[in-house]
Amino acid sequence: MSQPFKTIALIGKYNSPELSEPLLRLANFLVERQYDVLVARQTAEQIGASAYSMANLAEIGGVADVAVVMGGDGTMLNIARTLVPFNVPLIGINQGRLGFLTDVSIDTMFDTVAEMLAGEFSSEDRILLNAEVWRSGEKVFDACSFNDVVVAKGNAGRLIEIEVSIDGDFVNSQRADGLVVATPTGSTAYALSAGGPILHPTLEAIALVPICPHTLSARPIAVNSHSTVEITITYADDARVHFDGQRHFDLKVGDKVVVRRAKSTVHLLHPVDHSYYDMLRQKLHWGEKL
Amino acid sequence: MSQPFKTIALIGKYNSPELSEPLLRLANFLVERQYDVLVARQTAEQIGASAYSMANLAEIGGVADVAVVMGGDGTMLNIARTLVPFNVPLIGINQGRLGFLTDVSIDTMFDTVAEMLAGEFSSEDRILLNAEVWRSGEKVFDACSFNDVVVAKGNAGRLIEIEVSIDGDFVNSQRADGLVVATPTGSTAYALSAGGPILHPTLEAIALVPICPHTLSARPIAVNSHSTVEITITYADDARVHFDGQRHFDLKVGDKVVVRRAKSTVHLLHPVDHSYYDMLRQKLHWGEKL
Amino acid sequence: MSQPFKTIALIGKYNSPELSEPLLRLANFLVERQYDVLVARQTAEQIGASAYSMANLAEIGGVADVAVVMGGDGTMLNIARTLVPFNVPLIGINQGRLGFLTDVSIDTMFDTVAEMLAGEFSSEDRILLNAEVWRSGEKVFDACSFNDVVVAKGNAGRLIEIEVSIDGDFVNSQRADGLVVATPTGSTAYALSAGGPILHPTLEAIALVPICPHTLSARPIAVNSHSTVEITITYADDARVHFDGQRHFDLKVGDKVVVRRAKSTVHLLHPVDHSYYDMLRQKLHWGEKL
Amino acid sequence: MSQPFKTIALIGKYNSPELSEPLLRLANFLVERQYDVLVARQTAEQIGASAYSMANLAEIGGVADVAVVMGGDGTMLNIARTLVPFNVPLIGINQGRLGFLTDVSIDTMFDTVAEMLAGEFSSEDRILLNAEVWRSGEKVFDACSFNDVVVAKGNAGRLIEIEVSIDGDFVNSQRADGLVVATPTGSTAYALSAGGPILHPTLEAIALVPICPHTLSARPIAVNSHSTVEITITYADDARVHFDGQRHFDLKVGDKVVVRRAKSTVHLLHPVDHSYYDMLRQKLHWGEKL
Repeated sequence: MSQPFKTIALIGKYNSPELSEPLLRLANFLVERQYDVLVARQTAEQIGASAYSMANLAEIGGVADVAVVMGGDGTMLNIARTLVPFNVPLIGINQGRLGFLTDVSIDTMFDTVAEMLAGEFSSEDRILLNAEVWRSGEKVFDACSFNDVVVAKGNAGRLIEIEVSIDGDFVNSQRADGLVVATPTGSTAYALSAGGPILHPTLEAIALVPICPHTLSARPIAVNSHSTVEITITYADDARVHFDGQRHFDLKVGDKVVVRRAKSTVHLLHPVDHSYYDMLRQKLHWGEKL
Repeated sequence: MSQPFKTIALIGKYNSPELSEPLLRLANFLVERQYDVLVARQTAEQIGASAYSMANLAEIGGVADVAVVMGGDGTMLNIARTLVPFNVPLIGINQGRLGFLTDVSIDTMFDTVAEMLAGEFSSEDRILLNAEVWRSGEKVFDACSFNDVVVAKGNAGRLIEIEVSIDGDFVNSQRADGLVVATPTGSTAYALSAGGPILHPTLEAIALVPICPHTLSARPIAVNSHSTVEITITYADDARVHFDGQRHFDLKVGDKVVVRRAKSTVHLLHPVDHSYYDMLRQKLHWGEKL
Repeated sequence: MSQPFKTIALIGKYNSPELSEPLLRLANFLVERQYDVLVARQTAEQIGASAYSMANLAEIGGVADVAVVMGGDGTMLNIARTLVPFNVPLIGINQGRLGFLTDVSIDTMFDTVAEMLAGEFSSEDRILLNAEVWRSGEKVFDACSFNDVVVAKGNAGRLIEIEVSIDGDFVNSQRADGLVVATPTGSTAYALSAGGPILHPTLEAIALVPICPHTLSARPIAVNSHSTVEITITYADDARVHFDGQRHFDLKVGDKVVVRRAKSTVHLLHPVDHSYYDMLRQKLHWGEKL
Repeated sequence: MSQPFKTIALIGKYNSPELSEPLLRLANFLVERQYDVLVARQTAEQIGASAYSMANLAEIGGVADVAVVMGGDGTMLNIARTLVPFNVPLIGINQGRLGFLTDVSIDTMFDTVAEMLAGEFSSEDRILLNAEVWRSGEKVFDACSFNDVVVAKGNAGRLIEIEVSIDGDFVNSQRADGLVVATPTGSTAYALSAGGPILHPTLEAIALVPICPHTLSARPIAVNSHSTVEITITYADDARVHFDGQRHFDLKVGDKVVVRRAKSTVHLLHPVDHSYYDMLRQKLHWGEKL
């Protein structure tokens, strides 16, 4: 599959001076190969990349053919959410141990990025979630998540009580530390720690994973990604909803969190030799035995 | 949604004389309402239903517009696998506690079946699995499962060692008591006991759930139902593959079990007030709290 | 086993006017039977029990032969911790569904309490935990727990990183939502929700149960109750230690929480027909099957 | 702690010619240091150690001051059960990756064994289980386990139904693949795969761990090691009891398996720098993180 990538955006992890040198070298490498290079304004200012065209993320969304994100999975989560309305494909470069989303190593990035821009890549669509908080009939907050929407107890450290319904059907009421609603992407993040299943990225599914449920027969459930999940706080001293662990909003009793699949998807580009199962094996240490 | 059901097949649980009376009454009830009634030959012989037309399951598959199965989920598993090539919709009547697949109560069956045959039902397609056993390049067995294909240790009671690949990609090698490959339907059966997630019936997914894995980081994974799952026995004193817990085949080291989604699906008809989540709540005792 | 109970203390759940009538009736019942009755001052004031001798909890600890606690398990946790230095045996009366610690029903309390005071009871010692928080070489907090000491993330909703050692031996470092250190009594409370084992009350053991651990091979471990467990916060935006979910203290990076078995034990009195396993079966709904 | 070890028994893994050379070198090393060396007869015959005194295990039990077992944990389980009536301390040498029970590396065995025999060791008692099978009022089998007694389904691959009581108190009835009754030693073996807790070796406890239970609220429970655990088969097509996964006995409906702590304990000697938690961390890969 070949694709005429012309304008390449470069975006670095926030406040990471150690990325300055590799990012500038990559920019230079791409310019030499006749690509138009745009550096994200914030990144450019932090690393001193004044020689390159700068653009904010919305501008990047409008004109870039592909965005190269350098950092870790946390950076990719953040950038992916911001760029998702613009349909820009993403390449993730990781400076350390490879991540689930950043699967190009900084050590081999020149060769790999060159190959990928030349059309040697596999491409994958990942779903995102939109969540709205409704209070007394009004929408008081909304946000987008790439990994998960987590409704959880707050600082008081006591359980919350929620009612869950899916597509208008009552599912159950739960007393628990919280509930994770995860995309396939998020299924290998917090949801996995809470005991949830791994969902292959191609599944059109979202997982509902209870956190420390009081009902011992509670189990994770995976439902169609086109479902509407409603979570109503029926009891809490203190409750919050978290989005990818990066944003949050305080909830009150009676609030309803409505989670739906986002209209757009994230387009991830992988090196051709990328294998999801290789990544799982490596990240989850599946080679290790008792 | 209305549908011109004319020929109704009745199939009872094997060797269940207690079903004789309700089955005959249902047959009579349907005949009185001008339906053509076919009773499965084996059932008819066991309950003495000689007054009705008899047919074997293949004949039923050819002519019945709907098959009413009376018994438990085990009976439905068995009949559904047999009838799946014929595309006949199924109604399940349970004499005791409602099952996941047999959700019409024998106590209210006259009214409910009458309504359903009059077009008052919801309909649902459920996927099945086909599994083949390959030995030295030859297919030595194949079978169909509605719930699950389970590769497991046998009588010797020791773990087996398997290698799993999906669509030709190596996933992992596992030392475990076994591995469950479950449909959404089977996700609330054995796979759930082994720690697997619940998969909503509309998900085009199958779950791979390890049984007592030695690798502590092993986790259930749900993959696309169009995947080809290959399980190779790399070490075993004694191993078997089980199909819905109703059939089995002994495996040898080197055997490969290849699991794919079956081409046909099972068409289940539910009463209009059927709710999957109601059923889950009731069967899994989700109302109960610590 | 007979025992000369003479002075009986009555203690009610905080701010529970609905307990006024049964508590007064129980007090009257005991006075009629020639027992000396002491009502906890706070309880007396809330329910208007001015006709009886009043005493604060320390006075009760000094003179009562047995304390009857009316309320739920939460009330019992609280009273038991307060009275533990005084070695007063405890009887728990529950107004609703029986609790693990309050196993006399309010409906049958006259007969049961009379029998128990007449010597018809079984008695059981339960261990408690003492936890100290050390900061820069100084003890900055300490508290007692009957159920559990929980070191957990706070409101920020991000994982914490801790190092655990037992009796001076390094055990592991964990990235998790937190860690529960539970007594056998607490093993059926929060620790159970987090995936911990049930520890029989006679076990001289405490359980360390990770909450949503990032290390997938993390498992609950039960160690000798005479062990010293040290938990050091090595990374946290926000961390807290909770005592029975009733008190808490904010932690900083570098803080060390030291947990040891308390010197005293709680003496619970049960009706003679009390069975721990009956209680488990009932509370955990072990009769229920798939 | 010093101890006058004089007679040292050497026992090798069954049919392991690769142990011939190190075993003979260790025998020679000990003879040179004036120890009396006894080689287990079977081992001696398999490795050609005719130059040394030979003895069967009962003779070794009678005269040896310490037995050095070379092999893996499986060999140690077997030898420990056989020698337990004789109270002989055991040292375990592992040719490969260290085991929980065989914690001296073959690579450093000369120095380590010399130090240990000179009194530089820590010593530890480990409990064992005795299990009896009762049928129609008669004891039809008994055996000893160091790790676990496992009552499980057999080849038919269907669940069994059991009733569990402890010290005469009914605990619950279970429908499951089986039930593991594990010592602390066994808590890191099969019981761990089945979801059981780790029990520190000093705990006077045994764990009951259900295998794939149908009752979703079933949980592992640890009870006092002086408890008598009775497991009655109430339904099974096919059931077996396994002892350390090395012996087994076929069970029938109505059979009762009675498990008690064995009277004797195994005395394990460890190198002084042995740490149980180091071993756990290494074996369970607790260093690895998501």
